[in-house]
Amino acid sequence: MSAEASAQAAPAPGATRPFQVGLLGHGTVGGAFAQLLDERADEIERFNGRRPVICGVLTRSRGDVEQILADADLLVEVMGGIEPAREYLLRALKAGKHVVTANKQLLSQHGEELFECAREHDVRLRFEAAVAGAVPVVRVLEESLSATPIERIHGIVNGTTNFILSEMAGGKSYAEALAEAQRVGYAEADPSDDVSGRDAAAKMAILARLAFGSPVHLEDVRYEGIEHLDTDDLEYARELGLGLKLVGTAERRSGGLSVHVHPTFLYSGHPLASVSGPFNAVTVESDTITEITLSGPGAGGRQTASAVLGDVVSVMTGGARPPAPPLRLELVQDVDSAFYLHLDVEDVPGVLASVTKVLGEHEVSIKSVVQRGLAEHARLVMVTHPVLESSLRAAVAEVDEFDFIRAPTRAIRVIEEEFG
Amino acid sequence: MSAEASAQAAPAPGATRPFQVGLLGHGTVGGAFAQLLDERADEIERFNGRRPVICGVLTRSRGDVEQILADADLLVEVMGGIEPAREYLLRALKAGKHVVTANKQLLSQHGEELFECAREHDVRLRFEAAVAGAVPVVRVLEESLSATPIERIHGIVNGTTNFILSEMAGGKSYAEALAEAQRVGYAEADPSDDVSGRDAAAKMAILARLAFGSPVHLEDVRYEGIEHLDTDDLEYARELGLGLKLVGTAERRSGGLSVHVHPTFLYSGHPLASVSGPFNAVTVESDTITEITLSGPGAGGRQTASAVLGDVVSVMTGGARPPAPPLRLELVQDVDSAFYLHLDVEDVPGVLASVTKVLGEHEVSIKSVVQRGLAEHARLVMVTHPVLESSLRAAVAEVDEFDFIRAPTRAIRVIEEEFG
Repeated sequence: MSAEASAQAAPAPGATRPFQVGLLGHGTVGGAFAQLLDERADEIERFNGRRPVICGVLTRSRGDVEQILADADLLVEVMGGIEPAREYLLRALKAGKHVVTANKQLLSQHGEELFECAREHDVRLRFEAAVAGAVPVVRVLEESLSATPIERIHGIVNGTTNFILSEMAGGKSYAEALAEAQRVGYAEADPSDDVSGRDAAAKMAILARLAFGSPVHLEDVRYEGIEHLDTDDLEYARELGLGLKLVGTAERRSGGLSVHVHPTFLYSGHPLASVSGPFNAVTVESDTITEITLSGPGAGGRQTASAVLGDVVSVMTGGARPPAPPLRLELVQDVDSAFYLHLDVEDVPGVLASVTKVLGEHEVSIKSVVQRGLAEHARLVMVTHPVLESSLRAAVAEVDEFDFIRAPTRAIRVIEEEFG
Repeated sequence: MSAEASAQAAPAPGATRPFQVGLLGHGTVGGAFAQLLDERADEIERFNGRRPVICGVLTRSRGDVEQILADADLLVEVMGGIEPAREYLLRALKAGKHVVTANKQLLSQHGEELFECAREHDVRLRFEAAVAGAVPVVRVLEESLSATPIERIHGIVNGTTNFILSEMAGGKSYAEALAEAQRVGYAEADPSDDVSGRDAAAKMAILARLAFGSPVHLEDVRYEGIEHLDTDDLEYARELGLGLKLVGTAERRSGGLSVHVHPTFLYSGHPLASVSGPFNAVTVESDTITEITLSGPGAGGRQTASAVLGDVVSVMTGGARPPAPPLRLELVQDVDSAFYLHLDVEDVPGVLASVTKVLGEHEVSIKSVVQRGLAEHARLVMVTHPVLESSLRAAVAEVDEFDFIRAPTRAIRVIEEEFG
């Protein structure tokens, strides 16, 4: 900054006491946050008239939570897990302290308790970093789109699985791709929370609450992971001109709300189809806004820390209140979708007729079908019209009883073009 | 909403007087805004405890601006143009009224005057709809990224030109594509503000102010339109695996700031390369966040009205203050970029040697070169390494003096891959 620039920058009047930030957790994100705060404190003070400073740090081995609670104007929680994070944050909110948290597990399981406590004590509770890292989807849903009746959200909200699927699209097996993700630091030693879809489910629960105003608990979200996918599925996707992603969906259905996470084929023009590597992206659809998409890095210490610091600044400048008291929409579990079916069949006459007859009896209507390979490599690949998942599953169970079926039929959701 | 849901929604206490909105302008956006406000008023009241109502409308033929200024808590300005919009908004701000405007011309030419007036009278001034319609780029830059040192913004911020270029990529001539844009309502009868790049320049001036804190006047932005592009350019783009878009750029350069709008080739992996039709998208780059992208419909009455209403709700809930007093970064006009060069040459010996010699003397270094066609259709197509535009232009002027050059050489910027 030039001397001239400094001279022009008028500090806000009369605010000299630093803004005290207590930091719970000092791992990758906590460390990056402390460093970023230090780098940006001058600039934040120039714009907001108060300087944020860290007044105390709690780790597993050091720090005094009582002292931090007493001193802080705001708590940043990046320790993760349910307890003691939940207890500390409730105590902080009740003591009139603002809270910024990146804790998706906590919010997806105890969000309503925290929101209500924040409303009751008229303090801020912000959590941009809990979903999609530096991509500002939380704030956009909470604020920019607060006047918009949202119909549907699709999200790639887990960077680990998106990285693995991108590697598999390049030809690696699931095991090879997972090993690569672990090697470059995108997957943990125990990757089960990511690859099972549970991490994405927690994030979709949070987004659904913001978009639709209805409380959604992690346990309400149906999820399916990527462990059972194989390179064949990605090859067929490429041949069909489709992308294969782990997609979270939250949408209004039959007057209720459906929230689920599944591996999903996307037509190539879908905004999520081109999101690759560890990136995240969220598409919001509504009659009013058509469709907007936000994308960017979904993880990374410095990126996540940037989202946390943005929340701290938002609180310092009087940012938005906690989510309003919930509406309650009925949660709908059985929704319709188009499906891709992959049948491993013996190459004998009458196979297609037998299969389509059973599908028809369950009201599964076929949009396209391709027979691939010969003899012991014969495959039937189909895309259905939208059908209730329960009907599809029942049909597949019946099909799989035929003697000519050599391996359980694979069924994967398909999102087809809806926008011109 | 079910009866049960209504009963659960606790209204905020003690706030019964409606929030009075005065509406200046009742064209496409103004009409859509009035309708949307009406549709959403119940929901907004439920969340915020106050009901927004329109207390007066000013059009060219009716309405009393004095009465509206006296009655309103907030003015929505969607009339466009500089005067009398500027006068009305300054009067409103001075009278302690909040302002929401979609007026990019006004903000890009008199933004500092309005921001200062709003700060001085401690009222809100919001303008999400002025850039990229329903895509919440203004709020993301003002708030979510306020703690992030931004390095660069690239934006497709004019839907008319992006639609025309998409049509041209499909084989239409510029004239045919423009006529189609006019037919479907994406281009006005007089399209010059859009196709000249001036509309995009105004929007980039506003984004640059928000991202870098430095005042940028529309007249400070160098811009170039799409009128001179032809189908050949889009064909070469496709052959090279590039997209051709009208891209606005605002970036830190040599301690200063560069803001410009040009037709630009983008490598196919760039987040803006796949943005087609009337959509807008903005990519924000920073060391801290890597890169985030926001995309969606850039125009449309209802989409723009949705952004305006989001701003109204933001003001009702005490949203962000006007931009801080400006820093002043030096505006850098001559910046380096890679260029695509398209030379229309006679098919005689020594052409390539002569051209590369002149380019070398001006420090223009060639990254790739392809000779296309034969005899009277011979073309040299090159991509350069990054070079100062002044050097490139001087080199091209000298090259064009050769007798074997049959038409002025075409030079178009190229953005190459920077992110792995």
